[in-house]
Amino acid sequence: MAEHATITEVGPRDGLQISQGRMPTATKIGWIAAMAAAGVSRIEVGSFVPPKLIPQMADTAEVVAATRGIAGLTVVALAPNLRGAQAAHAAGAAVITVPVSVSESHSRSNLGKSVAEQVAEVGRIVDWVRSQAPRMRVEATASTAFGCSMEGVVPLADVVRVAEGLAAAGADAVSLADTVGYGHPALIRATVRAVRAAIGETLTILHLHDTMGLAIANALAGLEEGIRAFDGALAGLGGCPFAPGASGNVATEDLVFMLESMGFSTGIDLDLLIASRSLLREGLPEEKLRGQVALAGVPKTFRRAA
Amino acid sequence: MAEHATITEVGPRDGLQISQGRMPTATKIGWIAAMAAAGVSRIEVGSFVPPKLIPQMADTAEVVAATRGIAGLTVVALAPNLRGAQAAHAAGAAVITVPVSVSESHSRSNLGKSVAEQVAEVGRIVDWVRSQAPRMRVEATASTAFGCSMEGVVPLADVVRVAEGLAAAGADAVSLADTVGYGHPALIRATVRAVRAAIGETLTILHLHDTMGLAIANALAGLEEGIRAFDGALAGLGGCPFAPGASGNVATEDLVFMLESMGFSTGIDLDLLIASRSLLREGLPEEKLRGQVALAGVPKTFRRAA
Repeated sequence: MAEHATITEVGPRDGLQISQGRMPTATKIGWIAAMAAAGVSRIEVGSFVPPKLIPQMADTAEVVAATRGIAGLTVVALAPNLRGAQAAHAAGAAVITVPVSVSESHSRSNLGKSVAEQVAEVGRIVDWVRSQAPRMRVEATASTAFGCSMEGVVPLADVVRVAEGLAAAGADAVSLADTVGYGHPALIRATVRAVRAAIGETLTILHLHDTMGLAIANALAGLEEGIRAFDGALAGLGGCPFAPGASGNVATEDLVFMLESMGFSTGIDLDLLIASRSLLREGLPEEKLRGQVALAGVPKTFRRAA
Repeated sequence: MAEHATITEVGPRDGLQISQGRMPTATKIGWIAAMAAAGVSRIEVGSFVPPKLIPQMADTAEVVAATRGIAGLTVVALAPNLRGAQAAHAAGAAVITVPVSVSESHSRSNLGKSVAEQVAEVGRIVDWVRSQAPRMRVEATASTAFGCSMEGVVPLADVVRVAEGLAAAGADAVSLADTVGYGHPALIRATVRAVRAAIGETLTILHLHDTMGLAIANALAGLEEGIRAFDGALAGLGGCPFAPGASGNVATEDLVFMLESMGFSTGIDLDLLIASRSLLREGLPEEKLRGQVALAGVPKTFRRAA
């Protein structure tokens, strides 16, 4: 049996939140359903943030409600604070991801809080969630873990300290995010090792942006360090408002191609996944779609992991 | 001291040979000089093939003559046969690369010969070169080493047999080329190990296409297997006539960024390398230029290897 690797598709959240166009809700739901039908088992479908800040996410409650019944799909939503977590719970999300910047400047500009305040917010969310049924899973994302466009190098000691804080606050999982895409394989390796030494398997996911073209190599470095869960965005959607010119997430299609080729089962049908791009295209006619496997076509040498 | 990694820039050959436009000779020479000034120590400047087949390469003798005196630059040229090798020697190339397909179908369609005939041609070239002064270096490229668009999977035993044949023929170095970009990190690792077991350090270079978005991850896999020499093309130029829609080589800029970030010294100044794109743009106004580092800009976290 092939070893499993889990991909969380974050395009509907991390991609659509900065898209120029606004995808109609019905198309968004159809696109999510198509990706789930392709075998994507976790999809971050939106974020519970003020619609005034990110109007593209205003329909998140509706999207969660419409997709939470899809068989085999775990519906994930981003919630930056307790209020968002409560809204996510009310809508029926199975998992929330809570962003926590490691860099102080990024935390202030992105969340309006200090790093310590946001780590404490995760504790408040966990405490509240534990009193609720059904129990929603709380995952925390350590953003700017591999560099910050404002502060530059982010010290490894800071990443470890934040990860320890998130684990101590009771997060069910911690994710390390290369928010601006400054990471490289040696840094990924060193960081994963240090954080795993501190919080063990609670470090679960890598979230990798392709700003410098290294997202897929960084995923490989993480894989070789024992990481078995990755975020990806169909067609490499996404970007970072603080990194102009930068591209988005690692393309889910390319990540699936690499993982399956290397013998890791993702549960995803690559042809169906690529076919779901047509709904993305329909919903965002102007958006630049990336992803080499979709462009070139799945090669005849490709075999899914057994 | 940082460990060294050598990059051969192949854009002027592998990129320009399939470009729609035709770069003026003077611009080509200026572009090569600019890359050399950025610290690129090996550049494949063209190929000695019939101008009727590849008109973009008709000026290769002139380009070799104009660039062979550049301090610190090793001028490389492709030569598919003895006649080409003799022309390269007459023009003053320091190194020739001789393509040898591992896949029989690719060999017939690309070179008009069987694999065995082309391996024998390398032997004839080596014998002739040994009688000449100055001694030109002969490097052989095992093409389609990681898959073939016609034959699909290329058996590892075939790759090893061809590599052994090339080493026995007296090639100074053997390169493994992912001509159509079907390779993945696990295949790169297995192939490098098997070929190194057969011919040792004579396996020197990896040549990686980004068709499926894995070129940089494949370079990382090779690096981790001990490979310290890679081909790259500025702006990810290139492609493959047999893989429609496919993109070109790994972008030299991104490769330099990864290697230097990981502590491998390439001798290349990344800012100057990126600046040389302006000459490429001038010479090929219509060409699509790739490369994420050039698009996003070198991040403030970047430090060259010491």
